Amino acid sequence: MSLWFELPAKTISAAHRERAREHQNQLTKPPGSLGRIEQVAIELCALQHRDMPAVDRVAITIFAADHGVAAEGVSAFPQVVTGEMVKNFSAGGAAITVLARALNAQFQVINTGTVGELPALPFVLERRIAAGTKNFCDEPAMSEAECAQALSIGAESIDLLDDCELFIGGEMGIANTTAATALACALLQLEPQQLVGRGTGIDDAGLQRKIAVIERALRAQQARLQMPLAVLQCLGGFEIATLAGSYIRAAQRGIPVLVDGFICTAAALVATRINSSIAPWLLYSHASAERGHRTLVECLQARPLLDLDLRLGEGSGAALAVPLLRMACALHAQMASFAGAGVSTE
Amino acid sequence: MSLWFELPAKTISAAHRERAREHQNQLTKPPGSLGRIEQVAIELCALQHRDMPAVDRVAITIFAADHGVAAEGVSAFPQVVTGEMVKNFSAGGAAITVLARALNAQFQVINTGTVGELPALPFVLERRIAAGTKNFCDEPAMSEAECAQALSIGAESIDLLDDCELFIGGEMGIANTTAATALACALLQLEPQQLVGRGTGIDDAGLQRKIAVIERALRAQQARLQMPLAVLQCLGGFEIATLAGSYIRAAQRGIPVLVDGFICTAAALVATRINSSIAPWLLYSHASAERGHRTLVECLQARPLLDLDLRLGEGSGAALAVPLLRMACALHAQMASFAGAGVSTE
Repeated sequence: MSLWFELPAKTISAAHRERAREHQNQLTKPPGSLGRIEQVAIELCALQHRDMPAVDRVAITIFAADHGVAAEGVSAFPQVVTGEMVKNFSAGGAAITVLARALNAQFQVINTGTVGELPALPFVLERRIAAGTKNFCDEPAMSEAECAQALSIGAESIDLLDDCELFIGGEMGIANTTAATALACALLQLEPQQLVGRGTGIDDAGLQRKIAVIERALRAQQARLQMPLAVLQCLGGFEIATLAGSYIRAAQRGIPVLVDGFICTAAALVATRINSSIAPWLLYSHASAERGHRTLVECLQARPLLDLDLRLGEGSGAALAVPLLRMACALHAQMASFAGAGVSTE
Repeated sequence: MSLWFELPAKTISAAHRERAREHQNQLTKPPGSLGRIEQVAIELCALQHRDMPAVDRVAITIFAADHGVAAEGVSAFPQVVTGEMVKNFSAGGAAITVLARALNAQFQVINTGTVGELPALPFVLERRIAAGTKNFCDEPAMSEAECAQALSIGAESIDLLDDCELFIGGEMGIANTTAATALACALLQLEPQQLVGRGTGIDDAGLQRKIAVIERALRAQQARLQMPLAVLQCLGGFEIATLAGSYIRAAQRGIPVLVDGFICTAAALVATRINSSIAPWLLYSHASAERGHRTLVECLQARPLLDLDLRLGEGSGAALAVPLLRMACALHAQMASFAGAGVSTE
C-alpha cells in the first residue's frame, strides 16, 4: 500500500495544451512573439484542464520553524527573529503580507516549530511539532515521526484552502539556508563549497563556518543519507518538510504551484525526489540572488520567470510573479484572432 | 536660443533618493534582499520627488506609421497590417489593449502616417504627417520639417495626458525593425550584421535582404549621417521620431518613462543622443528576443527588469512590467520597520 505522499499527481491535459497552442497562434501577434507569457498560458490550460485558464484565486501560506543548527552561528540574525517575524506576518508588516494584500490572496501562516511558544495571533495556525529541529551537525534534525508529521501538516494546509487556482508556499526560519543547502548537497551529491551562500547576509567568517558546519553534518550522518525522505529527516527543517508536503498535495489535488527562491526550491527538489509525478505542477517564479539557487534550478531543469536579485524568501519572489501569470491569462482570453479582427497574416 | 527638445529634463531629487535608501534599510527584511525591487522604489522616489512613490496612473500611447522601406520585402507581414492593427487597437483586441485594461491605464493611439487614410476610430488620434516615410535606401525617410513635426507630435502626446505617474510609449509599423536597426547602426557605428534580427519572423532569405537593404541605405546616405537628428530624419520612421519626442517631453515634465523593446530602445537611443539630460528618466522594462536589443541596452548602460523572450512591440513588454513597479511602491510604503514591528536586527 502506498503512503499518501507517494500517490500520483493529477493528470495533465495534453488536449487542452494542444488547443491552447493552436489558439495562441490565431491571436493578433506574430506567432510566438509573447514568448514565455504564451508558454505560461498554454501550460496553465494543460494543468487546469481549461480553455481559458485563471489565477485570480491565489493562496499564500507561510511555514515558520526554528533550526537547531542556528546554534553554530550560521545566520546574520538571532534565532528570536523567526517568532518576531511570525508576529510581523500576523500584523501585516512583512513584505509577503504587503504583496498578499496587493494580490488579494488568501493568506495564512503555519507555525510548525518556533523555539518559543507564541500567543494566539490572527492569520497564524499553531502546529508546533517541537521547539525547533535538533542541531543536525551531530544527529538527525527530526525523528521519522516528526518528519512524517511535518509532511502531513503541509498536506493539511492545502486541504484547508478555499477553492484556489494557484498556491504559493513561503518560509521563515533563521538558519534555514544552512538546512536547505545541506539537504541539496546530499540529494545532488555536491560539495557545500559549490552551493553555499550568504543567506540573510552573513560575513566571510560566517560563510566559512557555514561550509564547515554542513561538511560536518554530511560526514556525521553519511550512513543515513540514502533515500530522499531520510535526507529530509536528517538535514531538513520543519518548514522545509511542510513545504514539500504542501507541494505534493497541491499537485495531487490539481493546484498549480508557484515556487519561490532557494529554500522553496530545495523543498521542491526533495518533494520531486519523493514523488516525481508532481514535477509538472511546479512553476518556478524567480532566480534568487542566493548563490546556490541557479544550480538547484538547473538540476530541476527549470527556467524561472523573474531575475531581480531577490533573496528575501517568505514567498515574496513568487508573489511578485503572480501578475505575469494573471496577464498571461488575460491575453489568452481577451486578444482578438486574425480572422475576428480582420488583420492580414504572413 | 534652444529648440524645445534641447531643454533640460526636470531635476532629480538626490535628497529623496538618500531618504528612500535609508527608509528601505529600516524595513523588516535583510538589507538589500528585495534587490532590484528596492532599487526601483528608490529611483522612483528620486524621480517623483516623493517619499512614497506611486505609479497608479499609467498612460500608454501607441504611435503608428508606415515605412517606405517595406517595399524592399523586409517584413514577414504585408504593409496593410499597420492600419489593420490600428483598428484592432481601437476595438480592444490587441495585446497592448488587453494589458492597458488590466492595468487600468489611460490608452491612446496616434496615427502619424499609415499609407492609407483611416476612418475616425475610438481612441485613435489622427496626426498623419504623410502616407508613410520614403524608402530610405535611396533618399532620406523624411524631410527636416517632417522629422520636426513628428518630434512635436510626440511632445504633444505627453501634453495631452491627464495627470500621470508613468508613461509607456508603444509602436506599430510594418518594417520598423529595419528602420530601428539602420538608425542604431548609424548612431553606434555598428555593421547591420551585428544588430539585425528577424522582427515579426522573417525567414533566412528575408534576413539577408534586410542586411543588404540597411547596408545600401547606410552607404547611400553616409554623408548626411553626422548629427543624431539627421540620422533620425534619414533612417527613422514617423513613430520612432514621435516616440523620441514623447520621451524627451516626458523627462522635461518629470514623468518617468518605461521603455519597451527594440524599436522603443532605438528611439530612446536617439532621444538621449539629442538630449542626454533625459537619460535618468528612462527605465528599461525588458530584454527583447529581437537579436540586436541586448547590444542597444548595453550601449545605454541599462539593465531591463524582465527577460521573457518577448518580441511583440506595441509597448506590451513595458505594460507587463508595470505591476512590479506598483508592488515596489506598495512595499516601500506599507512594510513595517524593525523598530515598529519589534523585530531584532543583526
